[in-house]
Amino acid sequence: MVETIGPDELTPLATGAAILGTGGGGSPQVGRLRLESILADEDHPDEVTIVDPLELDDDAVVTSVGGMGAPTIGVEKLPGGDEELRSLRAVERASGATVEAIIPGEIGGANSMAPLVVGALADLPVIDADGMGRAFPELQMDTFFIYGAPANYAALTDERGNQVLYTDIDSPERLETLARNATIEFGGRAGFAFPVMDGAMVKETAIRHTVSLALATGQAVYDARRSGVDPIAAVCEVTGGSPLFEGKIVDVYRRNREGFAVGAVSLEALDGDASLEIEFQNEFLVAREDGEAIAIVPDLICLVDRMTGEPITTEELQYGQRVTVLGIPAPEKLRTDRALEVIGPRAFGYDEPFEPLDGS
Amino acid sequence: MVETIGPDELTPLATGAAILGTGGGGSPQVGRLRLESILADEDHPDEVTIVDPLELDDDAVVTSVGGMGAPTIGVEKLPGGDEELRSLRAVERASGATVEAIIPGEIGGANSMAPLVVGALADLPVIDADGMGRAFPELQMDTFFIYGAPANYAALTDERGNQVLYTDIDSPERLETLARNATIEFGGRAGFAFPVMDGAMVKETAIRHTVSLALATGQAVYDARRSGVDPIAAVCEVTGGSPLFEGKIVDVYRRNREGFAVGAVSLEALDGDASLEIEFQNEFLVAREDGEAIAIVPDLICLVDRMTGEPITTEELQYGQRVTVLGIPAPEKLRTDRALEVIGPRAFGYDEPFEPLDGS
Repeated sequence: MVETIGPDELTPLATGAAILGTGGGGSPQVGRLRLESILADEDHPDEVTIVDPLELDDDAVVTSVGGMGAPTIGVEKLPGGDEELRSLRAVERASGATVEAIIPGEIGGANSMAPLVVGALADLPVIDADGMGRAFPELQMDTFFIYGAPANYAALTDERGNQVLYTDIDSPERLETLARNATIEFGGRAGFAFPVMDGAMVKETAIRHTVSLALATGQAVYDARRSGVDPIAAVCEVTGGSPLFEGKIVDVYRRNREGFAVGAVSLEALDGDASLEIEFQNEFLVAREDGEAIAIVPDLICLVDRMTGEPITTEELQYGQRVTVLGIPAPEKLRTDRALEVIGPRAFGYDEPFEPLDGS
Repeated sequence: MVETIGPDELTPLATGAAILGTGGGGSPQVGRLRLESILADEDHPDEVTIVDPLELDDDAVVTSVGGMGAPTIGVEKLPGGDEELRSLRAVERASGATVEAIIPGEIGGANSMAPLVVGALADLPVIDADGMGRAFPELQMDTFFIYGAPANYAALTDERGNQVLYTDIDSPERLETLARNATIEFGGRAGFAFPVMDGAMVKETAIRHTVSLALATGQAVYDARRSGVDPIAAVCEVTGGSPLFEGKIVDVYRRNREGFAVGAVSLEALDGDASLEIEFQNEFLVAREDGEAIAIVPDLICLVDRMTGEPITTEELQYGQRVTVLGIPAPEKLRTDRALEVIGPRAFGYDEPFEPLDGS
């Protein structure tokens, strides 16, 4: 298990998080650059402490932080950099508690970096766990909420300092609607902190050791490239995934709808006439080969460059890219009946049942 | 000037506020009943102290409270009763200041009663002034904001205890959009407190002595009825208004759109073939006789029962009602160039210029 994240870990962590982000969660590169400059600044620590969730005190005060919005907007509307920290301070003021550790809301994409930025700025440890084990588009899809954390305190801050604080919201779904509308009004991107949990709740609800998993995934890619072996096979070994399809992107349809980047990407096989279509809402949700679902949420569908293993996010999809589509089995906490009600195919409007991928 | 509001004042105040509400602001009757029961409760004072805005300390801490939403919903979705007080406590917590006096956000309709309810519950004085001198549908239309109060703190609470707090929002228009969306998500009605102002700001920005005006208007109606004289003439004498049209309602079109009650009411003259159409967005905005505007925002357009002078709000409009349409000149603070940008005809999408009504 990783114990610190310093400058050397940032590039592989960003790559691994972008793979686990299943096309969404935003590009981790902006956050990586910001974190690099903070760690290099003498006013801040030169690494961030990572703590094992199993070693948390049961009464430790924890919140999760990250960015909310459509990743397509995150590319063009750069964050100010302290939105998440200001949101964390707002939930501290409202709850009267002092946050002792931060947990990523999702390990995928940009939201793998945001907690480390706050950890570096506020000198707080980051927990080696997250609330999704991947990225998902909506906040009620956090396992914190799925497994019982209340929507007690939540704050959103934009890059101009506009701030909204939600208190005692009666369901995570309502918090999602409220916060989504505010994010849209803020121009499509805001930094959040929510909920305020204790260590016992984190142990019970979080997906464990996903910071370590993201880092190991990215390191496997770079190690394989350096050793001249197949980076995709290396990713599969670390994540338990397997290749589902190899092909060329022949069509991309993408637009912003209600604060999300939604669309579909079509692939044609390099070695035959099979075709694959993948639909997304920020994240890749279902892959259908010749019309038949071969992978579906909550399992992870990841697009990587066929040669380098470099992840391709939904906002980076382009005609002509040659890619491998990977399927990675979702963590067990995402596959329970309770979780599938919130993050299963039906929650995204699909009629197909959840047919779990087998681990490799 | 009125110095206290006790049980005897509630009925005339509600009637006067409904007249000044120009069809909107919600029915004051629910608030009146709630206030009656609070004043009758031995745990609370039996009257609410009313203070002259000119006698406020310049550094007194003041906020305005009231209800936000479509009045059509307020009729069916009864408030819990402490939404406004809980919002006031939220802006106190956030700002670190203790509110010393309350000012009505608008004097029209239900929002004339909400500040008195909070005043009675929290034993705080209510200022004899408001932020509109009537009712308007959107919060940036408060004279507090028009004349420079910042959107520093604002809270919304619904009847289930869901609460949103806005801090440092960069424009009142953005606060309106954020709070409107939250109100819709809360089911169409919420209690607010905003902004936090000092006494000097209140003196500079508020419409003065409108609690007294609302009470005097309602008392004029009841006194006239008791004396057997025309209540409508009595209203005109107190408010400076004059009758614009007498007629029968022949058509009502009304729907909820984006959290507002919008629509139009058509009248036919009782003594001829003239016709009048009045358009509304929560409040009556423009009256056109045979297609020609004869009164338009910010001037007050009020519908009252032709015989009793009883005000008719937009949600109470019905085919066949015989009504007098009154025009009341808006206070000077609503007629400046600065104010007309926010509350003039163009702000509501009308091409007609503002042609001020003359006082009677």
